[in-house]
Amino acid sequence: MRPNSAGSLFQLLRDGQPRTRADLAATTGLARSTVAARIEDLLATGLLAPTGEAASTGGRPPATFAFNPRARVVVAVDLGVSHARVAVTDLGGHVLAEDTLDLAIADGPEPVLDRVVEVARALLREVGRPESDVAGMGVGLPGPVEHASGRPTSPPIMPGWDGFDVPARLGEAFPVPILVDNDVNIMALGEHEAVWPDVDDLLFVKIATGIGAGIISDGTLQRGAQGAAGDLGHIAVPGGAQAPCRCGNLGCLEAVAGGPAVAAALREQGLEVPSNAALVDLIRSGNLEATLAVRQAGREIGAVLATCVNLLNPSVIVIGGAVAAAGEHLLAGIREVVYTRSLPLATQHLRIVASRTAGRAGVLGAAAMVAQHVLSPEQINALVGSAD
Amino acid sequence: MRPNSAGSLFQLLRDGQPRTRADLAATTGLARSTVAARIEDLLATGLLAPTGEAASTGGRPPATFAFNPRARVVVAVDLGVSHARVAVTDLGGHVLAEDTLDLAIADGPEPVLDRVVEVARALLREVGRPESDVAGMGVGLPGPVEHASGRPTSPPIMPGWDGFDVPARLGEAFPVPILVDNDVNIMALGEHEAVWPDVDDLLFVKIATGIGAGIISDGTLQRGAQGAAGDLGHIAVPGGAQAPCRCGNLGCLEAVAGGPAVAAALREQGLEVPSNAALVDLIRSGNLEATLAVRQAGREIGAVLATCVNLLNPSVIVIGGAVAAAGEHLLAGIREVVYTRSLPLATQHLRIVASRTAGRAGVLGAAAMVAQHVLSPEQINALVGSAD
Repeated sequence: MRPNSAGSLFQLLRDGQPRTRADLAATTGLARSTVAARIEDLLATGLLAPTGEAASTGGRPPATFAFNPRARVVVAVDLGVSHARVAVTDLGGHVLAEDTLDLAIADGPEPVLDRVVEVARALLREVGRPESDVAGMGVGLPGPVEHASGRPTSPPIMPGWDGFDVPARLGEAFPVPILVDNDVNIMALGEHEAVWPDVDDLLFVKIATGIGAGIISDGTLQRGAQGAAGDLGHIAVPGGAQAPCRCGNLGCLEAVAGGPAVAAALREQGLEVPSNAALVDLIRSGNLEATLAVRQAGREIGAVLATCVNLLNPSVIVIGGAVAAAGEHLLAGIREVVYTRSLPLATQHLRIVASRTAGRAGVLGAAAMVAQHVLSPEQINALVGSAD
Repeated sequence: MRPNSAGSLFQLLRDGQPRTRADLAATTGLARSTVAARIEDLLATGLLAPTGEAASTGGRPPATFAFNPRARVVVAVDLGVSHARVAVTDLGGHVLAEDTLDLAIADGPEPVLDRVVEVARALLREVGRPESDVAGMGVGLPGPVEHASGRPTSPPIMPGWDGFDVPARLGEAFPVPILVDNDVNIMALGEHEAVWPDVDDLLFVKIATGIGAGIISDGTLQRGAQGAAGDLGHIAVPGGAQAPCRCGNLGCLEAVAGGPAVAAALREQGLEVPSNAALVDLIRSGNLEATLAVRQAGREIGAVLATCVNLLNPSVIVIGGAVAAAGEHLLAGIREVVYTRSLPLATQHLRIVASRTAGRAGVLGAAAMVAQHVLSPEQINALVGSAD
């Protein structure tokens, strides 16, 4: 990457602050003529826009320029097992329009992705942006994904998706960069960008039918060697029951504390809980059995999170997902065990909090993943035709 | 950081390949005159050296330059509970001289660090390098360290060291950058640099009196929010015994599988095992009880590592430390449980191997940590006096 390329210069402008040509020359040490030429290139892409004039120091006041996140849009998609959220955002991660829809991931990739494209097109029409304004598309899937290729790898609850070329299919509708990742990874990205941008070590835990985590270490999302990092659901609960798990092992966290496991425990007490939403409703209505069951699930999750705390030493753990909507009872169970079981050094500044993105963590993260890619020095240089 | 600074240019030369001024101008897009001036600055530091001439394309053949790792040396220190290893290396991590010594970390920081300084000075004399050649000093300590300040934080087995300003004390003898980290973190760095440079996700596990891990994710050492990441020793063993641990909890990995725990189990069978070295000797001599005990310890460690695998998805786990010298019996116990308990996706390409640095992982990592710092753009710019 040439240090004097338009892409490199643009990185300085990502913070949105207006700057003059002289500011940029002083910061970079590049020649004024080089800066002026790069500014022209960036203005032509629309990603840089004039923002007025700086105070004059005598003579004509110099023009200022800033990153214009509204120049292009992103289609952000958060696919769950039984529903999806699709949003159109700008490059700064602001949601311009969004829609949630019921769909079954088990229907297979073609019908699901075609439906996503349909909804995305409707949202673009709604905000009055042509499809040519789409800079990229970000997709979260409820299973492991090989991030480099965008293909799911052996996803346990996504029949027909194993190895499917998601970017190729979506690329037929939107010929733009298409980035795919595990849903919990993009939730971690979204919560981090929107709520905790200054925290370097954050764990986002999704508690729903399955249980998984997205890991931000040293400010960066950690995917692991096969994109399988953060799979909390199949960790053996310390000292836990030996409940059989769909993965073939015994005593996995998901088998003792996932939404269906809590529902099964309540069924033995004569309570029918057909869904995670029904479980949350029961707790909100003050049902004691449901409250006790969720608090106990929190303790089991806490036992595994205590291990995560000793291993990763995060400063924030965010709890999200459909069951997390049960609120403080779940958090109380988690905190109880984490603060008992983890080392004092690792917990002295640790916060365990509920997600604050109101179900939007996934689409916000998908948008951030795309913005990170399309605004990188390489992509900007390709755009201005000076890549080398 | 100015993209056209000497420090930025030097990063291109870190790989040691000889380059001409023209090569560098072409790669960076900088003006020939700028490149020539930066080369002069870097030559003056000695870190860049002339390496001859490239093939001529007509006229005088152009001069080539390359990073000279022998220009300066590093003092690398790996402090254990009862011994230390001190080495003098070049900036490329090649050991020029080294010494191991018996010392008790419990004697407190002043006597221990003074002894380290004494040995370092002797090694410098041995290799005939003046103290002014020392570019930096790297130190590993057997406890949690706040890396930014170089101070141990609540180390459980280092009386007198809590909050001690290690860099200040050593800086009295060597007025150079002094970087301090947890010993397992630097072992992970050393094994990664020396043996697995192309692996992005690696876990180094030290099994000795204590048990700990250094985590490399996405090519970078992960320290966590308080520098406490990788503390495997106090993770609760899944389904494990409830042995009391010195940390105040029950069933910690260290309490069931650390060197002293194995020795205690053997003592109940009438075998006296006074040290980790004695345990290793027993196993090498073919003692069945000791072999069975170490294999069982491997299984307990494997249960916790299975959790690490699901959480971090590394592609290599390196087993090191004094008990690891017991060899294949320990590894067999670990592999047995990891491959049973972790998800197939995370284990399909996973290798679990013994350390290949023959006890040198710590000093190699300390040297790498220092080289990374003193060769950074900022430090190089400070050296040539063009920092801004």
